[in-house]
Amino acid sequence: MFKKMILGVLIYSISFGLPFNAEASITNRNNVIFMVMDGTNSDVITLSRHYKGKPLALDEILAGGVRTYSLRSAITDSAAAATAMATGHKTIVDFIGMVPYREKDQTIKGRPVANVLEAAQEKGLATGIVATAPIQHATPAAFSAHSISRHNLREIGFQQAHQNIDVILGGGKKYSFINKDFPVIYTKEELMRSTKSRLHGFFSEEDMAYDFDRRRLHPKQPSLAEMTKKALQTLNQNTNGFFLFIEGSKVDFAAHKNDPVGMVSEVLAFDEAVNEALKFAKNDQQTLLIAVTDHGNSGLTMGNRQTDKTYPETPSEKFITPLKKASLTVTGAVSQLKQDRSNMRDVLISYGLDNLSRVEIERMKNEKDIEKAMVQMMAKRAHLGFTTRGHSGEDVFLYTYGGKGVPHKPQGLINNIELADYVVKHLNLPPLSELTKTRFIPAKQHFEKQGFKTIVRVENKNQAPAFIAEKNGQTIEYPSNRNVRIVNGKEEPIKGITIYNGSMFWIPR
Amino acid sequence: MFKKMILGVLIYSISFGLPFNAEASITNRNNVIFMVMDGTNSDVITLSRHYKGKPLALDEILAGGVRTYSLRSAITDSAAAATAMATGHKTIVDFIGMVPYREKDQTIKGRPVANVLEAAQEKGLATGIVATAPIQHATPAAFSAHSISRHNLREIGFQQAHQNIDVILGGGKKYSFINKDFPVIYTKEELMRSTKSRLHGFFSEEDMAYDFDRRRLHPKQPSLAEMTKKALQTLNQNTNGFFLFIEGSKVDFAAHKNDPVGMVSEVLAFDEAVNEALKFAKNDQQTLLIAVTDHGNSGLTMGNRQTDKTYPETPSEKFITPLKKASLTVTGAVSQLKQDRSNMRDVLISYGLDNLSRVEIERMKNEKDIEKAMVQMMAKRAHLGFTTRGHSGEDVFLYTYGGKGVPHKPQGLINNIELADYVVKHLNLPPLSELTKTRFIPAKQHFEKQGFKTIVRVENKNQAPAFIAEKNGQTIEYPSNRNVRIVNGKEEPIKGITIYNGSMFWIPR
Repeated sequence: MFKKMILGVLIYSISFGLPFNAEASITNRNNVIFMVMDGTNSDVITLSRHYKGKPLALDEILAGGVRTYSLRSAITDSAAAATAMATGHKTIVDFIGMVPYREKDQTIKGRPVANVLEAAQEKGLATGIVATAPIQHATPAAFSAHSISRHNLREIGFQQAHQNIDVILGGGKKYSFINKDFPVIYTKEELMRSTKSRLHGFFSEEDMAYDFDRRRLHPKQPSLAEMTKKALQTLNQNTNGFFLFIEGSKVDFAAHKNDPVGMVSEVLAFDEAVNEALKFAKNDQQTLLIAVTDHGNSGLTMGNRQTDKTYPETPSEKFITPLKKASLTVTGAVSQLKQDRSNMRDVLISYGLDNLSRVEIERMKNEKDIEKAMVQMMAKRAHLGFTTRGHSGEDVFLYTYGGKGVPHKPQGLINNIELADYVVKHLNLPPLSELTKTRFIPAKQHFEKQGFKTIVRVENKNQAPAFIAEKNGQTIEYPSNRNVRIVNGKEEPIKGITIYNGSMFWIPR
Repeated sequence: MFKKMILGVLIYSISFGLPFNAEASITNRNNVIFMVMDGTNSDVITLSRHYKGKPLALDEILAGGVRTYSLRSAITDSAAAATAMATGHKTIVDFIGMVPYREKDQTIKGRPVANVLEAAQEKGLATGIVATAPIQHATPAAFSAHSISRHNLREIGFQQAHQNIDVILGGGKKYSFINKDFPVIYTKEELMRSTKSRLHGFFSEEDMAYDFDRRRLHPKQPSLAEMTKKALQTLNQNTNGFFLFIEGSKVDFAAHKNDPVGMVSEVLAFDEAVNEALKFAKNDQQTLLIAVTDHGNSGLTMGNRQTDKTYPETPSEKFITPLKKASLTVTGAVSQLKQDRSNMRDVLISYGLDNLSRVEIERMKNEKDIEKAMVQMMAKRAHLGFTTRGHSGEDVFLYTYGGKGVPHKPQGLINNIELADYVVKHLNLPPLSELTKTRFIPAKQHFEKQGFKTIVRVENKNQAPAFIAEKNGQTIEYPSNRNVRIVNGKEEPIKGITIYNGSMFWIPR
């Protein structure tokens, strides 16, 4: 009888279309690729398209807009924005995968909330994070870790190494930790050769080079598109599907410097990665591809005070020709400056600043902030305006693609926290609020209810902070930032990471 | 046999869904409402939402983005942008409903191209144009007239009066002409009372008041929402459907002044008009609603040099509270300034600039450009950045709505010229390129081929320029900018407007 009913439903589904919510049962192999180009306003994308002279991959999948504000600010930082997208919770500046609560003494602390990567793991999907920043940087951090400060790079790196993430690719070797369960690589060659189903790769000590600089100065680093392609090949070996996070991190870096060359470099590099992801998603038809920026940055506009009157007669070349003269970003150019500044002219030329008089070059040699002086000259030549060296608060563009097997794509105007819901829905994951309850149990409360005596061992030279519970001679220790506990001296795995916020411990069930 | 086939197709359509392109046959009553908020970047919309404290009507219908560049400039003016949207042709600065060509002497001249309003008329639909600027201003002009310069306001006004447009509502009484076939009104009261199916209304000599100023200083002017509602009631009396163009003109005016209060005033007034249009479209289900801006302006950002470091801890109130103190825009406030400037303090307070010391107020009394000084103070208080007093070149948001009877809505990233195609498609209009051929025939060539002698009578004190053809004692005269010709002294109507570009005449067939 029961079997017959199932058969009936199946036949009904095949003949007359699928009933609501049945799509998840078609296959276990749904995937999500979640891409963030950090700190990119609309103008930068338009400028990059003019620079390229052809449509971007992104152009094909524009679907709406995203509201970006954080819990207490109309302008978000990357940590709060990524926490919103990864966990579905608005939060405050600097918090990584945590939301604020007030302690009895009125100080604001953070408590961990589950993210979509953890939920995907919970369901047996493969997971990956890729970035051109240090992989411990705010945005990839919020998709893979929990910390009260984005600046705790080593803590975040340590968690990532113990978070059981199949693919980690990016910068940040300096803050990384080796987990012997994963092959670790450091070069583009090793990346290209890898055929494994798990892979941790760190290609620079800090952030990876800007893409323009990479091509000329750091050819041994892989591009974001190359990392994306390899991450997809690697994760796609898992038959349960995957969640992959990818960040084009350094549009934001360049925007903070007001360097339009760097901004274009990174948008185009990101767009090539989108092109790889889009090819995969089109071929696969069950992959939800989301591409967004987390917030605007720098207020770049095509047009500035010089074009107050002349704007309607300002051809594309007026913006692009000065930028195209640059073969390096301002960071790349200045990295080549000799200590005695004797090669100032060559450095300026490599940033596209040609036709400078000897007097002007001499003046530059005496500049205190050379990068700042250079980007200001470039902005003037390229008729670009900037309002700030910080982020901005506007709604940003949302890009999504999904084939036949993706019935629910985000579109229209959404709030950044809604993106987490779409990931959960497409991958048919447990609700994040449920996962938060089982992954992050307040340790003290949990053990004291069972009659344990508990202590918090704070950090010392040799040991990380740990939570320790004792009863009847039994000792259970939870070292912070790891996925193990130590029961009477014997290590055993736990499903998730123990989190410590400087005051409280949370442990997985 | 033929009848049976039709019946068969009908039954097929009803039973199994409509075949492609059959939707236009459901009814003759498709409508388009085409709304433009002139000169509005993403940041201004976000700021206005924060100001309102609730979602905008626009938020519900965000659908993608629009590329705005003009034929020869990466940054468009309003004339070229509106010509693109109305005619499907990119063009150059200042051109209204015209595209450039090179004369034998190498000078650049314009030739007229048909717009969607003309095509809607050709098919017997009702048409209307509504704006808060003078109705002869660039954007409404390009949807209703053809001129080599947006500055020819009287020529444009004269064409509009003879273009057989059912509804004209806006400013620009000064440049308007009365057409005795249409009831003409000048007050909000008359507007509210009207039940006619045609209506021309001019509510101010030049542009209408900014909405904040209207409420306090010009309560006898209707709001954009009120004009929108009346235009819809009026046009909806036509059983063939309608094309209605609506512009919230003055976001752009305020943006050129870098006045954030004026910008918010006009976005919110536009949004109320969108709300009216959206209610109509939802109720009607066969109306395609498009809302766009034609380009960015001013480079406004939430965040500026003051927030370089503090941006992630800048609550909404930091931006909004200073703006909310203003009850008038900078234009409205300064309009109340006495000649001896004795009421400077009150004027500043009406713009929200309170807490100024006596010294600061005295300094303002000596300012040459008071408006500029005031908006700069406001921008600083509200933590807003600006890059220019001109337009900017970025892709802008696209908003569309259409109910069940609207199968083809623009969405994703489109070029502004594609919007004309969507209007043509939804209203099942003749291709604009065909209409251009029949509406704008080169007059000289046309008549000389038939053996006429032709002359161009240039403008003189008493008479507008005219094209005159003579043969065998017959004289046919086409006065410029009108929809009549004079055959042997007797006026007869023609279907369309005669256009003169200072060198050539174009006449309708």
